[in-house]
Amino acid sequence: MISIRIVLVEPLYEGNVGSVCRAMKNFGFSELTLVKPCELGNFSKAMAMHAQDLLASARIVDTFEEAVKGVDVIVATTGKPGARMDGHIRNPYYNPKELREMLEEKSGIVALVFGREDCGIVNEIMEQCDIVAYIPTSIDYPIMNMAQAVSIFLYELSGFKGGNIALATRESMDLFYGHFDKLLDDIHYPEHKKDKTMMMLHRVYGRAMLNSRECYTMLGVLREIELALERAKKR
Amino acid sequence: MISIRIVLVEPLYEGNVGSVCRAMKNFGFSELTLVKPCELGNFSKAMAMHAQDLLASARIVDTFEEAVKGVDVIVATTGKPGARMDGHIRNPYYNPKELREMLEEKSGIVALVFGREDCGIVNEIMEQCDIVAYIPTSIDYPIMNMAQAVSIFLYELSGFKGGNIALATRESMDLFYGHFDKLLDDIHYPEHKKDKTMMMLHRVYGRAMLNSRECYTMLGVLREIELALERAKKR
Repeated sequence: MISIRIVLVEPLYEGNVGSVCRAMKNFGFSELTLVKPCELGNFSKAMAMHAQDLLASARIVDTFEEAVKGVDVIVATTGKPGARMDGHIRNPYYNPKELREMLEEKSGIVALVFGREDCGIVNEIMEQCDIVAYIPTSIDYPIMNMAQAVSIFLYELSGFKGGNIALATRESMDLFYGHFDKLLDDIHYPEHKKDKTMMMLHRVYGRAMLNSRECYTMLGVLREIELALERAKKR
Repeated sequence: MISIRIVLVEPLYEGNVGSVCRAMKNFGFSELTLVKPCELGNFSKAMAMHAQDLLASARIVDTFEEAVKGVDVIVATTGKPGARMDGHIRNPYYNPKELREMLEEKSGIVALVFGREDCGIVNEIMEQCDIVAYIPTSIDYPIMNMAQAVSIFLYELSGFKGGNIALATRESMDLFYGHFDKLLDDIHYPEHKKDKTMMMLHRVYGRAMLNSRECYTMLGVLREIELALERAKKR
């Protein structure tokens, strides 16, 4: 079973938050987390229409870290895929159909993250995401209204159940990335390349969507490498 | 080649009209016709964002008939498919993916019609449509925001080129329906069943999407039946 959590990071317009609630209820989703949202007054309620229950029950948090707590896979959405083609941060990206296919047979909690209306997801948050998703739009005007973008993702993911292959938890993946980071230091990997390489590793393992057994085995491999390095150093 | 015309019938909220323009530009569509729209002021411009050119060039007409002039296939969209399961008017319906598949290889002008925010497409207009399309939504809350619904259809139809099989024109299909109507009278088809049967014929031939040659042949068949009836009556 796949459970989807919608995360809006610092939404600026209450109407959009309401519209997102409506779209969520239209497609049978209910878990909404808002990071430092704008004030939610009457207009957000008006736009939520018959989804005001969802608006009222939205979880409001102060940080992105709190928003994705307990989530296994974090999917960033962007209107600007590969804006910096040299970097790994927004590459590769997947369209909503591909995202659905990637989650086929998986089990776990997935966060779908939407950034601020004026600037999208900032790089510090993008770096923490596992996968970058993108709706194919016209190059003349690629930036969509947030609520419409949410609608399209939920349209693709509605009725989607997922499967039984348990995704590795965020904690175990973070442990894995932590060990890899330490390993790069141990082998004196060039400092100026390190950040980019870690970002690439995040994108590679993010899209591979390791299951818990694979993550455990990968951690074992890293541990063995660390031990071999320690032994070699002692010699 | 398939060309898509978006038709909004009596939209009530200018914000929605603006949002529709934005979604159209996001997905590379530009032909918008509005039937008796609400006043389009600053809020519609604000919601159109960088698609204000499209808002300014929208064709405004007084009747649905003018809106669909020159269109070959009229697709009605509804949030209430088969509300009356006994009738043919809203049955059968197709989801956006199926609609795309039906138009594969076809060539012609297709109108995608969206009704008023409060009541959808009224029956008098629904009857004039060839196909009924529907976005699968939750039974708890099936009615979507209009601009979000437009987004989802255009997302499915974006980049869609169609093919070379020319759709029968509306004029020739209307001629065909006119002859069928006359035929039902000629054979003394029960008066109380006639409207429903004509509606069913519209749905059947609508979804069959006759090409111009097929329509011509069908007209020929009807003409032959009429002639045979005339001969038989004379005897």
